[in-house]
Amino acid sequence: MAIITLTTDFGLQDGNVGVMKGVIANITPQTQIIDISHFIPPQDVFSGALILSRSVPYFPDHTIHIGVVDPGVGTQRRPIAARLGKHFFIGPDNGLCTLIYQAAQKQGAPIYFFHLDKPQYWLSNISHVFHGRDIFSPVAAHLAGGAPLEALGTRIYDPIQLQVPEPRRTKDGWAGEIIHIDHFGNIATNILHEHIDKKAVISVNICGHTIFGLNNTFGERPPGELIALFGSTGNLIISIVNGDAAQHINAHRGDPVEVSLLNT
Amino acid sequence: MAIITLTTDFGLQDGNVGVMKGVIANITPQTQIIDISHFIPPQDVFSGALILSRSVPYFPDHTIHIGVVDPGVGTQRRPIAARLGKHFFIGPDNGLCTLIYQAAQKQGAPIYFFHLDKPQYWLSNISHVFHGRDIFSPVAAHLAGGAPLEALGTRIYDPIQLQVPEPRRTKDGWAGEIIHIDHFGNIATNILHEHIDKKAVISVNICGHTIFGLNNTFGERPPGELIALFGSTGNLIISIVNGDAAQHINAHRGDPVEVSLLNT
Amino acid sequence: MAIITLTTDFGLQDGNVGVMKGVIANITPQTQIIDISHFIPPQDVFSGALILSRSVPYFPDHTIHIGVVDPGVGTQRRPIAARLGKHFFIGPDNGLCTLIYQAAQKQGAPIYFFHLDKPQYWLSNISHVFHGRDIFSPVAAHLAGGAPLEALGTRIYDPIQLQVPEPRRTKDGWAGEIIHIDHFGNIATNILHEHIDKKAVISVNICGHTIFGLNNTFGERPPGELIALFGSTGNLIISIVNGDAAQHINAHRGDPVEVSLLNT
Repeated sequence: MAIITLTTDFGLQDGNVGVMKGVIANITPQTQIIDISHFIPPQDVFSGALILSRSVPYFPDHTIHIGVVDPGVGTQRRPIAARLGKHFFIGPDNGLCTLIYQAAQKQGAPIYFFHLDKPQYWLSNISHVFHGRDIFSPVAAHLAGGAPLEALGTRIYDPIQLQVPEPRRTKDGWAGEIIHIDHFGNIATNILHEHIDKKAVISVNICGHTIFGLNNTFGERPPGELIALFGSTGNLIISIVNGDAAQHINAHRGDPVEVSLLNT
Repeated sequence: MAIITLTTDFGLQDGNVGVMKGVIANITPQTQIIDISHFIPPQDVFSGALILSRSVPYFPDHTIHIGVVDPGVGTQRRPIAARLGKHFFIGPDNGLCTLIYQAAQKQGAPIYFFHLDKPQYWLSNISHVFHGRDIFSPVAAHLAGGAPLEALGTRIYDPIQLQVPEPRRTKDGWAGEIIHIDHFGNIATNILHEHIDKKAVISVNICGHTIFGLNNTFGERPPGELIALFGSTGNLIISIVNGDAAQHINAHRGDPVEVSLLNT
Repeated sequence: MAIITLTTDFGLQDGNVGVMKGVIANITPQTQIIDISHFIPPQDVFSGALILSRSVPYFPDHTIHIGVVDPGVGTQRRPIAARLGKHFFIGPDNGLCTLIYQAAQKQGAPIYFFHLDKPQYWLSNISHVFHGRDIFSPVAAHLAGGAPLEALGTRIYDPIQLQVPEPRRTKDGWAGEIIHIDHFGNIATNILHEHIDKKAVISVNICGHTIFGLNNTFGERPPGELIALFGSTGNLIISIVNGDAAQHINAHRGDPVEVSLLNT
């Protein structure tokens, strides 16, 4: 049974996600459909790319990932499908798959992009504003049902790529930024475990607060304390034990974060 | 594998939706269950009817749609099941299926309503306040498992119907109203594509704002601009490019909307 | 086809729930996964226990329930699996399964607890902060796939149990407290149907308001009226007809509730 995942900024109130599942079930009934997130902030392509890149590696090989964060829907932006290593991506050509693309590149895995230009794999009426329903879901369902990827469109070599904010080496550490704030208010930065030596003693400056040292997990410190640790994706995160760090220190995506390596 | 969809005002925090799925899995394990929405505004039967009517056409024939927006639960209001063209509806007799009923009528499709009065298809204990769990889910599961519709209840001919707000022809255009505000803040009106001639040049008056002309999609205009376009359901919608139109112009369901046809 | 349910405080924005489903699908593809709730208030183990205990009885025998409300993740708190009557629980050893444990005890059903200490059933890399992904989901998937419960860990006899707030008999009735506020603003108390004689005439004192008498359901009274009734779980609940009672009377979990039996 093929798996299709869904990642969108649609929310769950309007029935749009259910409609996409109906379209898929109509074309390839024996598909398992799994929601990754429908609460990507509206039109925030980078957040969608980030959530996708954190989730995709945990799915079985050959999973088909539909991503729809699509402010350019109905304009000249291309609908695309891609094979990115062992996974498939279907969605708009706006950089939403940049991070899974880069991960596949790093592994030297096979990568192919296709411009979806074969309307025989779409619904018969195409709206200007809901390609998730009219193009991406039917194409994904046909792929899940056995249509070969290369039949769905024309090969392209110039997919749009996002600029991904990278941390910068400074005199005494790293300068990065906040890339995600999660449901709990945990603040994720783009500074990674691999950037910091295991023996390093660090301090973190963020939104006017300084945190000394690293913890392994929340429960090591008393409720209410602001701590730094590595999250489950390897990113440096700032948290308040049993609290909402982002609210408490008034943190927002894009705010700068500085790590000082104190013993180097 | 039969499909059952769920549309409710239950939200997702309290486990009620999961419980309905458990009840269905207990009775007819090989059922695919798809959520349409659980964020219908509380007790807002018209919104539920609207979301259902937009979603149902995209599901396979014979899909069973459970709808539970049910302020009259446990009173004399009847629980019903209906065949409405190629789809089934199960829920309270309060007009929640009015729009899919009317769509089936327009197509001249077969329509049958039944009063669910056969407790052998229900759970053994019936609460006064959660018929979604105790009546609608088990009935839907039995239908999915092969029980004939006519076995589930007694045929009726007088289902409750909602008053649906229809737009009105005016001297120079149409007078309608706001019928839905979506997750993005897009404002949907009850003025339809079919009401407006393709060559018409229009202006829209809504909440003290005037919009000239129609666009095809969001990305045709710069971020922040208030635009009018036809949504994916054929309704005239008012949007702010990459923004929240409803919040920006303080729009609410029921507010009046006027379209002027400038070149007629 | 085995069923796994998920109950967490993860919310739905960050993809964590989708990742857990990907992990399960990777190990035991033919599993049906059903969400109970992902909006347990953060770190609120009692609320998680309550929602689980209301939901579990409606699922088929042998359903595997993953619960992750886990402020102690990555500390010395044990990961556990349990057979509790006809159901399985997998999650942290922090009392999250207390209420389903007590229900199984009351029925004299078989109960076994295991400390999950066999890493061969986990993902190969274990984070300190996301055991839902790294331990609980893979263990549940292996159990769903046929691994015997006793292979997953070492039997233990001292699971952590929550203190559950019990109502107290008073001179003229019962003193209890608010244990849950639902999506609609209905206020659930820990006073049960079984505490109150069927012929009793009662008044309820809550948050400075007094309610006389009991209703069967919402629609028996006009919109806006504050009423007392028994909810679908047998708990005494306080509601406003078509309104949000918790907001209206400013009620919070833990607030005291007094029931007076007027005719005894």
